[in-house]
Amino acid sequence: MSAPVPACESTLAPLPESLLVGVSGGVDSVALLHALVRAGRRPVVLHFDHGWRTDSRDDALRVRELARQLGLRFIGGKMKPAAGAPRETAARAARYAFFARTARKLGIPDLALAHHADDQVETFLMQLLRGGGAAARGMEAVTRRDGLILHRPWLGVWKKEITAYARRRRFAWRDDATNADTRHRRNLVRRRLLPYLQKLAGKQVAQSLWRAAEIQRAESEWLDALCADEAWRPELAVKTLRAAPLARQRRTILRWLQQGGVEDISFADVEAVRGLLENRIPAKVNLSAGRFARRRAGKIFIM
Amino acid sequence: MSAPVPACESTLAPLPESLLVGVSGGVDSVALLHALVRAGRRPVVLHFDHGWRTDSRDDALRVRELARQLGLRFIGGKMKPAAGAPRETAARAARYAFFARTARKLGIPDLALAHHADDQVETFLMQLLRGGGAAARGMEAVTRRDGLILHRPWLGVWKKEITAYARRRRFAWRDDATNADTRHRRNLVRRRLLPYLQKLAGKQVAQSLWRAAEIQRAESEWLDALCADEAWRPELAVKTLRAAPLARQRRTILRWLQQGGVEDISFADVEAVRGLLENRIPAKVNLSAGRFARRRAGKIFIM
Repeated sequence: MSAPVPACESTLAPLPESLLVGVSGGVDSVALLHALVRAGRRPVVLHFDHGWRTDSRDDALRVRELARQLGLRFIGGKMKPAAGAPRETAARAARYAFFARTARKLGIPDLALAHHADDQVETFLMQLLRGGGAAARGMEAVTRRDGLILHRPWLGVWKKEITAYARRRRFAWRDDATNADTRHRRNLVRRRLLPYLQKLAGKQVAQSLWRAAEIQRAESEWLDALCADEAWRPELAVKTLRAAPLARQRRTILRWLQQGGVEDISFADVEAVRGLLENRIPAKVNLSAGRFARRRAGKIFIM
Repeated sequence: MSAPVPACESTLAPLPESLLVGVSGGVDSVALLHALVRAGRRPVVLHFDHGWRTDSRDDALRVRELARQLGLRFIGGKMKPAAGAPRETAARAARYAFFARTARKLGIPDLALAHHADDQVETFLMQLLRGGGAAARGMEAVTRRDGLILHRPWLGVWKKEITAYARRRRFAWRDDATNADTRHRRNLVRRRLLPYLQKLAGKQVAQSLWRAAEIQRAESEWLDALCADEAWRPELAVKTLRAAPLARQRRTILRWLQQGGVEDISFADVEAVRGLLENRIPAKVNLSAGRFARRRAGKIFIM
């Protein structure tokens, strides 16, 4: 576990001065908080209580107490109780809504998160297995979303390095909390698929997958930059698009459908719209929620 | 198993008129041979006997007999007996050397192979698990290699479609032969990993992985085309390369090392050479087999 792994502290240098940090109370986020403080930062500590467990309030209290000890501002949020168990996607949406709300209130858009190399491998595997209109590429080191700027300085640091760092520095954390918001799918990948892959093909499989995600991510970023100048227009010109490389056709169509407000876009949808570039009949493709794309007079429209 | 799956016959139309076809005697290649003949082609039938099994000579005789029945020319090759069991890479090399030799002799460079969508998924998974300097992208529909032009018209057709097609048309094949040259690693992926993934995440996992490979493949092809104008030079200019997108830096370095005759290039090698773009000390990176890269006066050299 050597080459792509920078130290827990050195990777924090590029982060902006004013900063929020998301702290669940598990080893990753507790270590990130301490590392930031050791690097001379004074982040605002955000904690979101999903109500996963009956004792989840303990986590909130511990994180609040940790922030107090470090002399940092603490802001907590809480999931509204819903009928039945909270679902992963709803919990995630509520957490990010809390982060975005708080960022706006404080006027600090930058939020540091403790996602690490093992999380990256899991995310990449989940994207691969799910498939979709776009390439699997893992998480980005910096993402903009609802007015937040999410920073993930530890995507190249492995969990075991974080744990070793936290032990060496004698930080106190709560073991369970780390996995509190990981539900069904991610847990399957973490607890069953990855160990299975390592048994089958060797321990270095995690690094191979990490490298694969990193290569795809950077290549996707480059291609995104190449397409960034395309302003959205209500129609696509068949002749221009037909002359573009296959992958560019796909990207242009995917972006065009997304920006045109089409939902649940699958690879098959993209390929079907791409099929409209040929002069085939029928010149119409059904999309989700009653939307459709149609070719007429050398142009493709969404309805 | 619907969207990306064209019929066994319609995908053969773009193949060139003069053609070789590799036939092991298993369902895939026997079906491909018949499909070509049904499409009006008269391919030369090539069979390579790896000597995997004691009865592998039976396969050669069956394929020869099939070619005779179809009125096609047959050319067989045979692995030279080696000490111990033949290894997969050696067998593969010997098979392609036979194909290339025959292509030269006949003056027909085009060779059709029966690799299908399931093979593509396996190859993609193996590339992902192995990691490497370049992105996992599966096999190409057309590859040039040692004077051969390999065509894989069935990368979008699933094995079960081929089997159904072969049954419907009442072709005769020998079941074992299909997997004769797949050894340890590919068999692990086929017989254990893929069924496991499907149990874990659903039957559609194979399609998701196929789509992922197809998206990566097309994106890689686009990026290759963007870099195709770079002629090899004995040195890289630091300033120019530093200004390029990260993924382009990686591709340029990988190609440069490959074309400079460096072997066994890992992702870590590429990243280390990329590290020379920063003005760090030492300005030297060790590569395989005693080769190294060095930065001097704003340029990077391989020695």
